[in-house]
Amino acid sequence: MLCSSPLSSQQLILPKAQSKARTHLRLCHVSPRMSLDQRPPSSPTSATALLKTVTKLIWGPSLPPGLLISTVRIAWNTAWQLMMSQLAPSDSLGNYTRPASKFSLRKNPPATANLHLYVGLPCPWAHRTLIVRALKGLEDAVPVSIAAPGQDGSWEFRHNPSRNEDVLVPGLDNANGCKNLKEVYKLRKGGYSGRATMPMLWDVDGKEVLCNESYDIIQFFNSGLNGLARNPDLDLAPLELKGKIEEWNKIIYPNVNNGVYRCGFAQSQEAYDTAVNGLFSTLDVIDDHLGGSRYLCGDTLTLADICLFTTLIRFDVVYNVLFKCTRKKLLEYPNLHGYMREIYQMPKVAATCNLMAIMDGYYKILFPLNPGSIRPVVPSVCEHEVLSSPHNRESVSSADKKMHAYIS
Amino acid sequence: MLCSSPLSSQQLILPKAQSKARTHLRLCHVSPRMSLDQRPPSSPTSATALLKTVTKLIWGPSLPPGLLISTVRIAWNTAWQLMMSQLAPSDSLGNYTRPASKFSLRKNPPATANLHLYVGLPCPWAHRTLIVRALKGLEDAVPVSIAAPGQDGSWEFRHNPSRNEDVLVPGLDNANGCKNLKEVYKLRKGGYSGRATMPMLWDVDGKEVLCNESYDIIQFFNSGLNGLARNPDLDLAPLELKGKIEEWNKIIYPNVNNGVYRCGFAQSQEAYDTAVNGLFSTLDVIDDHLGGSRYLCGDTLTLADICLFTTLIRFDVVYNVLFKCTRKKLLEYPNLHGYMREIYQMPKVAATCNLMAIMDGYYKILFPLNPGSIRPVVPSVCEHEVLSSPHNRESVSSADKKMHAYIS
Repeated sequence: MLCSSPLSSQQLILPKAQSKARTHLRLCHVSPRMSLDQRPPSSPTSATALLKTVTKLIWGPSLPPGLLISTVRIAWNTAWQLMMSQLAPSDSLGNYTRPASKFSLRKNPPATANLHLYVGLPCPWAHRTLIVRALKGLEDAVPVSIAAPGQDGSWEFRHNPSRNEDVLVPGLDNANGCKNLKEVYKLRKGGYSGRATMPMLWDVDGKEVLCNESYDIIQFFNSGLNGLARNPDLDLAPLELKGKIEEWNKIIYPNVNNGVYRCGFAQSQEAYDTAVNGLFSTLDVIDDHLGGSRYLCGDTLTLADICLFTTLIRFDVVYNVLFKCTRKKLLEYPNLHGYMREIYQMPKVAATCNLMAIMDGYYKILFPLNPGSIRPVVPSVCEHEVLSSPHNRESVSSADKKMHAYIS
Repeated sequence: MLCSSPLSSQQLILPKAQSKARTHLRLCHVSPRMSLDQRPPSSPTSATALLKTVTKLIWGPSLPPGLLISTVRIAWNTAWQLMMSQLAPSDSLGNYTRPASKFSLRKNPPATANLHLYVGLPCPWAHRTLIVRALKGLEDAVPVSIAAPGQDGSWEFRHNPSRNEDVLVPGLDNANGCKNLKEVYKLRKGGYSGRATMPMLWDVDGKEVLCNESYDIIQFFNSGLNGLARNPDLDLAPLELKGKIEEWNKIIYPNVNNGVYRCGFAQSQEAYDTAVNGLFSTLDVIDDHLGGSRYLCGDTLTLADICLFTTLIRFDVVYNVLFKCTRKKLLEYPNLHGYMREIYQMPKVAATCNLMAIMDGYYKILFPLNPGSIRPVVPSVCEHEVLSSPHNRESVSSADKKMHAYIS
């Protein structure tokens, strides 16, 4: 299209048959509200009715072709703005502003607490908790329930008959038997009507949301459950590196972790331009740093690395395309790509990276950004074989023997 | 979003203020038709009215959140399907089917004909004609007018005060002084009400559309104007290679040139999957072939190469993202990327590649695929400096000295 193809204005006129069909539809005969019916219009019949309604809205029969396209374009863009403003709150300049989590971890629960972790596989914030849980060997101490995105925007628990030994898959709610995450939140004393987000750490006996702030959870997993952990001596936030970790988090969180969302959820060209420049100038800095440093804070893997990794592993498979993080693929950053592969190849990490679930999540849930709901083909560089190729990071600095020894 | 962010269902409920505003709007008070006003709603007031109308359509006030999201999702997807069905005709399975051009070149115009070429810079089909015109040295024999995409879907001619010596830019209609391409088509005897597409070769004296089929035009430019060409001896379709050229065209046109459109314009997952597999398996074959062959048909640049080039130069900057051609960036095909750089570096070719105009064209015109109309950052590998880096193709086989000598 463009040029030799149907880009010219008259192409956007309805075919005659549809045009005729329209003439006998009077404005007030068809309600433009979707709410009359109270059922989601998923059956073929209601989908056809819906098509007609949308047609009536978008395709005014009497506009000249040029105005018609301008109008359709503005209507479409306006609908998008409206959806995005609901999906992704923004300031007056169109910059995405992430809402704060509601449940911070005020004090660590007692070691005897009966804990349960709720996660979704697409989510980079939930992914952090799965990785620290795996590296520390907390699988038995903190069982997990994995929800999948539902058609209606909720996180659902569904029976999954297929078994996959290599990678985590969604399933039922093993703690409360709920159908979706919202139900779990409502089980707490006093109920809950806010956003039902993940990751969420649940106190099974007390029936309470302990925390839904990812960084609080990984700090707690790192140091608060050593009596139950299979790798209690692995410390991902040693005292002497706390300052460095915090410094990196302060750079990486706004510009990279949240930076990719600021690109994808930008509601103005200016907001996008600011976000994408911040993202790539930060990736440039990190790639440069990793040319001479095995991990962010030196020879030791830390929580800062885990937080960076969960964004990196989604970069080429999602953010590069859906969030328009287009200046480079991660593949084009040799140090960052090797670094990501090294973490991917650490024992039990790859099993937390379900790339198909990640793609499904983003491309289907974020429908305002992907109106056709078509899921792109997996980039070659995101296949397990490529991610498992030699990372050659041993030579960057002395290998962290201690950490590797800890991970069984 | 997802997870710690506003993915949960209640997020898609309208804020209270908007909700209140809605309650006193009765269905028949606000027409869902955009046609009442007859002006494009570009002013803030009409945009606000439009916003309200779209809000009313999409956000039914009484649906529970879950159903509401399902409904919005289906409405959005349906609107997309409808727009795509107008923009890109498809068969019943959602496969894009490109409409045929209307004006084939039945016989070559006489050498004395006063010719004019109409093109748009985003268009890969028009780009073919610009390259052959440049390589053959036909700039004086066939003047060009370059249109830019207008807000209303037409191709417009606009005064362009900025000068750019390095690259072609859009401007006025130098042959007929028309405001847009549609007007030019209408000047022909008997008028014209079909699609006003480009490239279009115009007979100035006869006021007639000679041809709007790109391959006919480049064949004619290659051999039909040698009396006027500055490089008459350059033959991009030598007799002994005609069979090979045709063979490559038969593979490349459906799978690559049109293949990227079949990915981007697919209206079902199955249609997309078929298209994307065909595209990348063909690129695999070509990359492999170019590992041992300087050009498609051996040591000689031919029309088949020009036709492939105009898709390749758009690949990383547009198709990889907007059309979801995600398996690989072109950069990841070493032979294809070097081959593309070699053609880019041939004298006068780079000036035909206005990458900003290409991005603007695709990301703004194809609004159904890019509802926010945000233009992504230019990929680093698409910057002029990278495209101008050594291609090292000389070693693939003996350099085609003859052709290089011909091009002044």
